Amino acid sequence: MKNNLLDCKSLSKNDVEKIINQASIYKKAYSKGILTPEFKGETSFNLFFEPSTRTRSSFETAAKRLGIMPINIYGNFSSIKKGETINDTILNLSKMHPALFVIRHNASGICQQLSNITDIPIVNAGDGTHAHPSQALLDLFTIIEKKGTVKGQNISIIGDISSSRVARSDSELLVKMGCNVTFYAPATMLPVSHSQNITVAKNMLEAINNKDVIILLRIQLERESGNKFSSLKEYSKYFGLHKDMVKDKTLILHPGPFNRGVEISSNLLKQKNVVIFDQVENGVYVRMAIFKWLLKELC
Amino acid sequence: MKNNLLDCKSLSKNDVEKIINQASIYKKAYSKGILTPEFKGETSFNLFFEPSTRTRSSFETAAKRLGIMPINIYGNFSSIKKGETINDTILNLSKMHPALFVIRHNASGICQQLSNITDIPIVNAGDGTHAHPSQALLDLFTIIEKKGTVKGQNISIIGDISSSRVARSDSELLVKMGCNVTFYAPATMLPVSHSQNITVAKNMLEAINNKDVIILLRIQLERESGNKFSSLKEYSKYFGLHKDMVKDKTLILHPGPFNRGVEISSNLLKQKNVVIFDQVENGVYVRMAIFKWLLKELC
Amino acid sequence: MKNNLLDCKSLSKNDVEKIINQASIYKKAYSKGILTPEFKGETSFNLFFEPSTRTRSSFETAAKRLGIMPINIYGNFSSIKKGETINDTILNLSKMHPALFVIRHNASGICQQLSNITDIPIVNAGDGTHAHPSQALLDLFTIIEKKGTVKGQNISIIGDISSSRVARSDSELLVKMGCNVTFYAPATMLPVSHSQNITVAKNMLEAINNKDVIILLRIQLERESGNKFSSLKEYSKYFGLHKDMVKDKTLILHPGPFNRGVEISSNLLKQKNVVIFDQVENGVYVRMAIFKWLLKELC
Repeated sequence: MKNNLLDCKSLSKNDVEKIINQASIYKKAYSKGILTPEFKGETSFNLFFEPSTRTRSSFETAAKRLGIMPINIYGNFSSIKKGETINDTILNLSKMHPALFVIRHNASGICQQLSNITDIPIVNAGDGTHAHPSQALLDLFTIIEKKGTVKGQNISIIGDISSSRVARSDSELLVKMGCNVTFYAPATMLPVSHSQNITVAKNMLEAINNKDVIILLRIQLERESGNKFSSLKEYSKYFGLHKDMVKDKTLILHPGPFNRGVEISSNLLKQKNVVIFDQVENGVYVRMAIFKWLLKELC
Repeated sequence: MKNNLLDCKSLSKNDVEKIINQASIYKKAYSKGILTPEFKGETSFNLFFEPSTRTRSSFETAAKRLGIMPINIYGNFSSIKKGETINDTILNLSKMHPALFVIRHNASGICQQLSNITDIPIVNAGDGTHAHPSQALLDLFTIIEKKGTVKGQNISIIGDISSSRVARSDSELLVKMGCNVTFYAPATMLPVSHSQNITVAKNMLEAINNKDVIILLRIQLERESGNKFSSLKEYSKYFGLHKDMVKDKTLILHPGPFNRGVEISSNLLKQKNVVIFDQVENGVYVRMAIFKWLLKELC
Repeated sequence: MKNNLLDCKSLSKNDVEKIINQASIYKKAYSKGILTPEFKGETSFNLFFEPSTRTRSSFETAAKRLGIMPINIYGNFSSIKKGETINDTILNLSKMHPALFVIRHNASGICQQLSNITDIPIVNAGDGTHAHPSQALLDLFTIIEKKGTVKGQNISIIGDISSSRVARSDSELLVKMGCNVTFYAPATMLPVSHSQNITVAKNMLEAINNKDVIILLRIQLERESGNKFSSLKEYSKYFGLHKDMVKDKTLILHPGPFNRGVEISSNLLKQKNVVIFDQVENGVYVRMAIFKWLLKELC
């Protein structure tokens, strides 16, 4: 059976460990200037139906470093414009024998649907409010890199949890790997239901005290999340993270792009425990490892 | 003199046979995992002034498999926006010494015009209602692959023939290669004139009976073809192909993207004699062969 | 300290000579069919926030010939749409370890600003009305190639000088290299102030007589330059260059895209002393040399 990376729920702990380990091997190789064009001559398709810089660039960099030649398809300049369904687009592109698909789309669950109709491995690069598994894996990689281990870590996720695919994938993965996960958000941004392994904090103090890791989420101003609180200023006051609120040993993550002065203060961004740019750097290696795992070349 | 692929009329039978033969060599090589980066280090320009997924992806995959590095230029984000004529754009880009141009444009005949002003080979990837020669060549390749031969085949083309560059290129090529070609369409969709070698069917029965191959055309809803019949439902009833209408030995082709339930029923798509996805697969090999022929490397 | 190419003012004469010399080496190599994938395995980011064909294609061709794999980011399909600042975009992309950035933007001075926040070399591919240094270097290369030397050349720049980044970069570079530079334009298109080494001509005759080189500028109809003269016809009559106005030994350059019949007559374009297409050809080699210089690999 072929591999897909659709969400974190369907990943085994063993798969996760393999991917993290391989990403670490790639990171070491690149620090020594060693190139890894292991899949030279392969092509892939990147289909992005939502704007993206970070994730698309990261997947494209990862592919190119492995010798894979990605072909970009933008939703607004494709046959979708002629009324073709995305199912038929994937069926057609599959016949050109790409090594894999990377897909971002605003419809939750679409990657699962597409994975059933093609023999080509699919990476979900973010589907609606459903899942963003490569982000969760790079968050995990960064936590392990900085903390040495993941098991038993106390981790808070703060922000618009109910509409965040990152929060969903992060919490699924981190609970699976043995973390204690806490949610904190305005009531309008909490999910209707959640895993019984997750605690909901009552206030900001409870959300950030004695935490090893805090994951902040972006206020998605371009979606509807602006309607879920009275003002950005108020959100920032009650749910934003500012200087001197947390100890130096607490790691602070954010999937980006961050809104300076909303979820996080500009002056906080420069502190050593804020590892947002490490996440971006690690993202490339983790996505290289994901590709290798998809192509069944991982030991 | 340089090669261009502008239409099917100007291709000699010998050239056609060479291209088909080379495509077959590439298909065999790829089935054995043999890479063919024969033009390593070359660049090319893909200029698409109309939306396209299939054709652009196919040409881009073909180029990359040959080691050619294509550079994509989108009409809506180029100097055309600054008022530069397409002639001047081509003159300028030619000076960067690309191996070839691949051009899609809504103006019929534009590739012919451009081929006169540049020394760089041009592939017409579809110009207005004029020609789409790479599509016709991949259709021919697929017919030969499935039927063993092309000469003497009875072939119907059904749909909006008058505004279809595929119908024009297909009929030119298939007549040249010795087929008996029949057109069938609503009166509003028949061309004003056509080659005397082509028959026009009087009804659907005549169009599909005793045919070796049926080529269905897409109702181009994004163009004006919606005005040429009273309703999609009626079109589908009188000109669409449905289950049990044709024998198993009759090949059914469609250039895509198809409108399920309009030109062709969804349930028909799964039958073995429907070779639409084979066309897509073969398209890559045929376009690789076209590139090799353009670059004068074909024996 | 890292190299950047932000403007011509900050380039030393020695750097200019090195880049021109390397471009000449690349041009010779390509004329002999020698490939130069010297930076194989590297990636780069091309961020174009303004439409461009020539410059983007030239930088992309240059990168690919050096083995660099460029990743294109379009302003209208990126995280800028989500409210991310360009500073944060650059900080993020820098963590993916590209070899370099190529940036075009409508904000004058933005490349200088960005170069202060990243360790990755930046090439300014045109920022507002400020600078377009790679264009000036390719103009210089073309002048040296055709005239044998640059020192002491009498050079006129004619057109919308005050809003032209090309005029600014050309004049800075040419004065630095020992040319006598003359400006000519409608009063509304002259800069408020200019280097004391530059003369302003009083009329067209003075602007073109006894000149070794004339650089024409484009009327930027898509910007506001249309408001600065009464009609295109009048502009063409008093500031355009037409057949028989200049001697055969006077080189005529234009950064493109040119408006035929406005700055320059169509019939003039065919003359041998009009080297606009040589500029485009040389642009690729000059940009390859710029990349090599940025990556500190120039002797």
